[in-house]
Amino acid sequence: MSQRRLDLVFATLADSTRRAVVERLASGPASVSELAGPHDMALPTFMRHLKVLEDAGLVRSVKKGRVRTCHIEAAPLMEVQGWLAWQRQVWEQRLDRLDALALSLEKDIE
Amino acid sequence: MSQRRLDLVFATLADSTRRAVVERLASGPASVSELAGPHDMALPTFMRHLKVLEDAGLVRSVKKGRVRTCHIEAAPLMEVQGWLAWQRQVWEQRLDRLDALALSLEKDIE
Repeated sequence: MSQRRLDLVFATLADSTRRAVVERLASGPASVSELAGPHDMALPTFMRHLKVLEDAGLVRSVKKGRVRTCHIEAAPLMEVQGWLAWQRQVWEQRLDRLDALALSLEKDIE
Repeated sequence: MSQRRLDLVFATLADSTRRAVVERLASGPASVSELAGPHDMALPTFMRHLKVLEDAGLVRSVKKGRVRTCHIEAAPLMEVQGWLAWQRQVWEQRLDRLDALALSLEKDIE
């Protein structure tokens, strides 16, 4: 994942309305009106959030007749999670090395 | 983790310089000048990024004499990773249910 894509996905998720849409869509597709329902904002404002999610590749939507149905796109979420998991692995390995070092120092003292 | 904290941590990570600092600190503490070294920007600009990281709780720093040493703070990274892992779990469970449904439909047809 390019740095620009990571920038975009992190920035998109830095908003509680957009995270709520991701949470809702994780459990299945939904129409725009279903998605907008719980949010106390004007529809055009909500649509702007949806556009940010689509532009970042986190949501795609399909129009059938008068209903637009939204789906989650898993790949960008998994890539961002992958970046975080990688940092965690690096720092846990470092802590493991520190633990091993502390143990061997203790043994030297004994 | 509150919505405001999640907003803050996601927004902080939406920048390649700040992610590079997190990546560097995952493998061990570093002084400000070590951290700034690889980045082609004026020191005050770099310090602003470091301040954003500290304000979001991702980095803490300790000054000893003339050297300020920075450390990673794991908790916010883990909480953001937790949010992403949770979405993934919800949507994988849904896919599992869809698979199970498809299998049972196939059996009905046989």
